[in-house]
Amino acid sequence: MKLHAPAWVAAYRRGQLPGDLIAALVVTMLLVPQGLAYASLAGLPPQLGLYASVLPMVAYALFGTSMVLSVGPVAVTALMTASALAPIAAPGSPEYIAGAIVLAFLSGLMLFVFGLLRLGQLARLLSHPVINGFIAGAAILIIIGQLRPLLGIQSQGDTALELLWALLGSASSLDPLTSAIGVGALLLLWLARRHLATALERMGIPGPQATLLSRMAPMAVVLLAAAGVALTGIGDQLAVVGSLPTGLPQMVWPALDWSLLTALWLPALIISLITFVESVAIAQAFARQAGARIDPNAELRGLGAANLASAFSGAFPVTGGFSRTVVNAEAGARTPLAGVLAAGLMVVVLLFATGLFRSLPNTVLAAVIIIAALSLVDIKGLKHAWRFDRLEGIAFGGTALGVLLAGVEAGVVFGVVFSLALLVWRASHPHLAVMGRMPGSEHFRNVLRHPEVECDPALVIVRVDENLFFGNAEGIEERLFAIAAEHPEAEHLILVMSSVSHVDATAADMLEYLNATLADRGVRLHLAEVKGPVMDRLEAGTLLGHLSGEVFISTHAAVCQLSPAGR
Amino acid sequence: MKLHAPAWVAAYRRGQLPGDLIAALVVTMLLVPQGLAYASLAGLPPQLGLYASVLPMVAYALFGTSMVLSVGPVAVTALMTASALAPIAAPGSPEYIAGAIVLAFLSGLMLFVFGLLRLGQLARLLSHPVINGFIAGAAILIIIGQLRPLLGIQSQGDTALELLWALLGSASSLDPLTSAIGVGALLLLWLARRHLATALERMGIPGPQATLLSRMAPMAVVLLAAAGVALTGIGDQLAVVGSLPTGLPQMVWPALDWSLLTALWLPALIISLITFVESVAIAQAFARQAGARIDPNAELRGLGAANLASAFSGAFPVTGGFSRTVVNAEAGARTPLAGVLAAGLMVVVLLFATGLFRSLPNTVLAAVIIIAALSLVDIKGLKHAWRFDRLEGIAFGGTALGVLLAGVEAGVVFGVVFSLALLVWRASHPHLAVMGRMPGSEHFRNVLRHPEVECDPALVIVRVDENLFFGNAEGIEERLFAIAAEHPEAEHLILVMSSVSHVDATAADMLEYLNATLADRGVRLHLAEVKGPVMDRLEAGTLLGHLSGEVFISTHAAVCQLSPAGR
Repeated sequence: MKLHAPAWVAAYRRGQLPGDLIAALVVTMLLVPQGLAYASLAGLPPQLGLYASVLPMVAYALFGTSMVLSVGPVAVTALMTASALAPIAAPGSPEYIAGAIVLAFLSGLMLFVFGLLRLGQLARLLSHPVINGFIAGAAILIIIGQLRPLLGIQSQGDTALELLWALLGSASSLDPLTSAIGVGALLLLWLARRHLATALERMGIPGPQATLLSRMAPMAVVLLAAAGVALTGIGDQLAVVGSLPTGLPQMVWPALDWSLLTALWLPALIISLITFVESVAIAQAFARQAGARIDPNAELRGLGAANLASAFSGAFPVTGGFSRTVVNAEAGARTPLAGVLAAGLMVVVLLFATGLFRSLPNTVLAAVIIIAALSLVDIKGLKHAWRFDRLEGIAFGGTALGVLLAGVEAGVVFGVVFSLALLVWRASHPHLAVMGRMPGSEHFRNVLRHPEVECDPALVIVRVDENLFFGNAEGIEERLFAIAAEHPEAEHLILVMSSVSHVDATAADMLEYLNATLADRGVRLHLAEVKGPVMDRLEAGTLLGHLSGEVFISTHAAVCQLSPAGR
Repeated sequence: MKLHAPAWVAAYRRGQLPGDLIAALVVTMLLVPQGLAYASLAGLPPQLGLYASVLPMVAYALFGTSMVLSVGPVAVTALMTASALAPIAAPGSPEYIAGAIVLAFLSGLMLFVFGLLRLGQLARLLSHPVINGFIAGAAILIIIGQLRPLLGIQSQGDTALELLWALLGSASSLDPLTSAIGVGALLLLWLARRHLATALERMGIPGPQATLLSRMAPMAVVLLAAAGVALTGIGDQLAVVGSLPTGLPQMVWPALDWSLLTALWLPALIISLITFVESVAIAQAFARQAGARIDPNAELRGLGAANLASAFSGAFPVTGGFSRTVVNAEAGARTPLAGVLAAGLMVVVLLFATGLFRSLPNTVLAAVIIIAALSLVDIKGLKHAWRFDRLEGIAFGGTALGVLLAGVEAGVVFGVVFSLALLVWRASHPHLAVMGRMPGSEHFRNVLRHPEVECDPALVIVRVDENLFFGNAEGIEERLFAIAAEHPEAEHLILVMSSVSHVDATAADMLEYLNATLADRGVRLHLAEVKGPVMDRLEAGTLLGHLSGEVFISTHAAVCQLSPAGR
């Protein structure tokens, strides 16, 4: 891989600047409260959320391929960071922060190396129901976890049950002032999300601007709350963000000691996988709208560079965020310059405006997180998956439940293992169809679904609806013998191979045995519609030399020759 | 499951008795030396090999379904027993023997429970190349390991490399007397296996009897060696079997302490799997010859009962042995009564004849093991697999190498993971074919393999040779777009679904997106030859409602309607 300026730099047109600039402004307005909130969700000092929003955006702009993806702190990776670091150290402690840096470093390194190795296809191991189930489960876990700072309750727990149990047990410690501010902020944010754009339009503001303005609601609520607390002087009765350091992040080198590496490589791998899958899904959705393309391997490098940049900034894992990307695209971003400009604005915030958030109550950050997480719980998607196929619904719901009951990593592992096991199980239990000819055609269909088809009792035509491999060879053999036994008059068994794209050695052994046994019983075995690649394979084996029957180009050709009377 | 007398008891005919009786005699003559040898291979006192040959045979006769399978100690499970117990205790120590009993108990329990749960299909996870590779690797490991007692060398090691290294390092400690006897026995056994039957036939003995007599060579060599050593009085210059306890095994209850269970459950599971797969393969091969059937779930219960019986006899895991089963069948065994009678003869040996083996040199047992293991190294099978498909050859060779270099358990795990990964990888990289009509027919084939086919430039016909699922949805989408881009004149894309037996939710999302994007570019998407089960699934989703084109029963019907001029 050669390092050179990204393609969008050379192709940049002046006309793209206004869109990129407005997008940078709007995204920054969203990124500041989200950064503060997600850092605290990750158990880290709030300023790290701002640090994670400067260099990572620039690094992604240099290496990534999406024009609009907004990379930075995101709720699900923040949760995964907290979950990975919980066994290592106490949240906020220097060891904990060092762990977060190592986690970002390892994730970044893995993503970058996977990109160099062109392993973008690895992400295909996650099916849509598994991804959606994972995100829904993580979002519910986030919401339950944020009830604690929202209501000012002291409680702890890793899984949803533990959290709920701890919340119930300490519900009496609920702080009325904190709860009132938090629930108020929650209501405001919810109303803004649901109704603000429409309300602004009714006030005569054009649609697109109204939508953009409504996106600034989190920043407005945050500033309002901080100002309110500062002015009323109730900051000492509440948990507040406190004074943030002014200035840019200092460059750090991750403390790569052996025990940290062994404890964090697996969480880092899972964070990498989720980071990548989520980002690519978002980037691809937007690229499709614009008729552009995403290169998954370049995305791996882009996200890897962003996470390495986050580690060197002393922060935590980052990825492409859905809500910020929507805002970025809606606000008119045309190139990654929007991200670079947003990073520049974030520098301005860090240099001059951190004081604004000193009196910001933590409960308002919890409200920001809860509102963002709510939109990730995709009940419609669960219904859709369930209606399409019960087993897909189980993959969705099982992954979500796995995340809730056993933690984020266990949830992902359950989802991947369940989908792969399902794949093997399905392939091991193939559909077989006994076929007959549709009257007046050369086309053959299942006799059970099309009772009108014509059959010749001397011919049994069976279509096997799966590749032949070790997992199903024995089962198919048994069922073919059973079918042959049900047709005692048959002299020919025609195996229609139209659905068979691969035959392995175990299945080739089975076909040899089937052929020999049927021949002993006076039944000849024929193959029809054998695909090219399968024929190549069979020619390398010994079956064709022993075959009692013939290989026909089509089922029709087989029937014409074997049953001339039946034509 | 109800306990009742096995079917063969009620159906027993007097005429079957002579065959069963002769088979029992011949099998016992083979079982005694093999039992002694495999017990020492397992690192256990030799008499345990005889103990493992009494009750397990009776238990299998009660629960199993094979008429000829000979259950007892076997080389590969003896090796796996030694490998599982090596980290637990020193070979031959009381703790080691207790471990062997627990291993037999756990394997037996697992097999029996799997049988009750009807999990016989689990064995299908092992493909033929993986099974054969495993057996070949284990056999080579056994042979290398037996060079030590054969040559009287002191050395140790778990993997083939360690063993070879230790052997080379201590080659100077080779004992000339032991080596001479061992290599002599080896030569005798090898000659008997290769030439004895023919030689006996030349001497006028009818073929079948000559073959049976040649099968007794191991017993003859063992008795000859024991007598020779006893008469010449060189027993104190050699490692010999020593005095065996006379009498029947005492019933024991396995010492199920927690640390043993946690250390042995995984080896026990792998031994169960291998035991089952090997036995069923052997039993099925013989059942096929006799036109009979094997019930895999009854086999699981039969082998489970045999292993539980071995545990209660104070012995080690057992399974169906290939060479003994061949001998049993050749000698005329017709029912499991042959096994029960052989168990009775073994009782006679234990009560009256253990003294015969006191002066038997260990090197002769090593020779017996090496000759038996040699026949398990299936070089032809490796060549066959490699010629059929390079990747199957890699599965075979990789499993064998895994066993040799990393141990028996690692070898099995490699084989299973490699085959499953290959399955997923293949399904994720499907073959796509652009098709045209074979002149004068209703049959369509790949334009690349059949250049004579007729095509209409307004129609692109693509057949996808794989089920559509999360692993390949994105790749197929990309390639369909690429194909559409290569055919700028196309107005219709017909997706031929003849090879698609399943569509999952991720792939259904892909088809929706494909349909919408192609429609935007003025290309209509049609489906043809959609199978019944796939149609059911699509009707549960939303694709059919949005489809820009139609669903046709056959490719021919689609072409007739969309390209009437092309007819």
